[in-house]
Amino acid sequence: MSSYIFGHTTPDSDSIVGAISLSYLKNQLGEETTPTRQGEVNPETAFILNKFGYEAPELKTSYAGEDVYLIDFMESSQSPEDINEANILGIVDHHKLGDLKTAAPLEMWVRPVGCSNTIVKQMFDYHGIEIPKELAGMMMCAILSDTVIFKSPTCTKEDTKACKELAAIAGVEDYKALGMEMFIVKSDVLSATKRELVLRDFKDFEMGGNKIGVGQLEVVDLSVFDEMKQELFEAMSELKAEGERHSVLLLLTDIMQEGSQLLVLSNEADKINHAFEVTLEDKQVWLPKVMSRKKQIIPFLEKQF
Amino acid sequence: MSSYIFGHTTPDSDSIVGAISLSYLKNQLGEETTPTRQGEVNPETAFILNKFGYEAPELKTSYAGEDVYLIDFMESSQSPEDINEANILGIVDHHKLGDLKTAAPLEMWVRPVGCSNTIVKQMFDYHGIEIPKELAGMMMCAILSDTVIFKSPTCTKEDTKACKELAAIAGVEDYKALGMEMFIVKSDVLSATKRELVLRDFKDFEMGGNKIGVGQLEVVDLSVFDEMKQELFEAMSELKAEGERHSVLLLLTDIMQEGSQLLVLSNEADKINHAFEVTLEDKQVWLPKVMSRKKQIIPFLEKQF
Repeated sequence: MSSYIFGHTTPDSDSIVGAISLSYLKNQLGEETTPTRQGEVNPETAFILNKFGYEAPELKTSYAGEDVYLIDFMESSQSPEDINEANILGIVDHHKLGDLKTAAPLEMWVRPVGCSNTIVKQMFDYHGIEIPKELAGMMMCAILSDTVIFKSPTCTKEDTKACKELAAIAGVEDYKALGMEMFIVKSDVLSATKRELVLRDFKDFEMGGNKIGVGQLEVVDLSVFDEMKQELFEAMSELKAEGERHSVLLLLTDIMQEGSQLLVLSNEADKINHAFEVTLEDKQVWLPKVMSRKKQIIPFLEKQF
Repeated sequence: MSSYIFGHTTPDSDSIVGAISLSYLKNQLGEETTPTRQGEVNPETAFILNKFGYEAPELKTSYAGEDVYLIDFMESSQSPEDINEANILGIVDHHKLGDLKTAAPLEMWVRPVGCSNTIVKQMFDYHGIEIPKELAGMMMCAILSDTVIFKSPTCTKEDTKACKELAAIAGVEDYKALGMEMFIVKSDVLSATKRELVLRDFKDFEMGGNKIGVGQLEVVDLSVFDEMKQELFEAMSELKAEGERHSVLLLLTDIMQEGSQLLVLSNEADKINHAFEVTLEDKQVWLPKVMSRKKQIIPFLEKQF
């Protein structure tokens, strides 16, 4: 039986490229797999796919009765609604151990690194399978995106090593320049609705029985948001009500200044203040050096809930 | 900070040897780790340690505030009571994805193979670290034990490959003969109390809010139990009451006949009948070809609960 490989809801470049790269590897190893995606392709990912001549994986949101591999997530809140009716054969991820369970033993490649595609690169090496040039280019871009061109505190030596090796395979000499080009595409926030912006890289987390949504937008210059803060808050407010969320947070990350403006709507704003040892003013605060939701936001929120 | 590496409660040979082998590997890689154990060493494991000149790891049952690696389990029911206060750095396992969670990204080497030490062998190969001769002998024995000398349906090509490579390193030519010797030691059920026998390889599982304990004893000839069934049931009954368990099952596995006599005490014996499509007579039934608790018992029970 053929199996499906997909990343989290509201997929980012790592989820989309990871589905493609892991599927290619599995197929080379004799399995029959198809990469899919749970949601729309964002502008950055579209740029990457276009640059290296790949199509986006098929959109598929229901997996009951199917064999599946998950890449870049292991939380039910980021899964298809019928994930409990799917048969999870394996997980490749770089996040914390979430709340998914399986009925049978499975394959898990989980590492505390900055990007899932770094792990997929290690899997290619482990199995001695060659990576096609264009696929290597996409995997390299996924790493540059997830690690914010190596600036994120989640970036490890393994990520930089994998990225450099992939750049060599892809024949890309100035990969940092390509990374900046990618982030400039990502910084185009004017062609999307405010709701689309909040949802572009948005993840829900279960914390002590509360649903907490945290979005992130990474740009080369934070001033693009100056005129639209009020509208972003309105979109966040809608999402908070619709999803019965306890809190909705939006992290506006400036990759040049290396810090984030945090926007907060919460039933308990005090807990957010305590989590980051700050005082929200006008429902927002500047967090210097904070670039990683996974490492610098989520663990501190979880301690409060 | 030094970290601890340990297997599940009521440790078997895979858990004890795995703690030692993974700790050795981690230390070679520059970490500072100590193998420990959550419970008494069983006779088979004592035979293996003695044969290859190793000491049992230190007994340690509390890990609050400690950095830990888990080997051969990822269920809270098989964890130390204060596991939620420990910092799980990594998990090496060959079971289903359980209910443990972490606050931060971690390292997971999980494969659907017959033995954790097969995965540890692959980790040695991945990192290019040599395995000392005597350690290789112990890892080989752990694989022979967990796979019932390759007869268990959980045994994969990867297990036989790892076992043969370890036998070569250990300089053991007739590893199957050593495996039989080990199972004869394991078959000595006369020198233990009945309670000790039921607990020798006993695991609790949470199924639909019910606590279900399943023990297993593997022997070369099932007739050793003929005279003691009634007393085994008494010991099971005690454990059922003490632990407020919904069911206590004991699998008496005959490794030569390749099947198991299943003893059952349950609040809902019907569910056990349905799970295995059998009819218990006198609270027991013969299950031909059933040798693996993990693959042939637990998934079928879980479907019922």
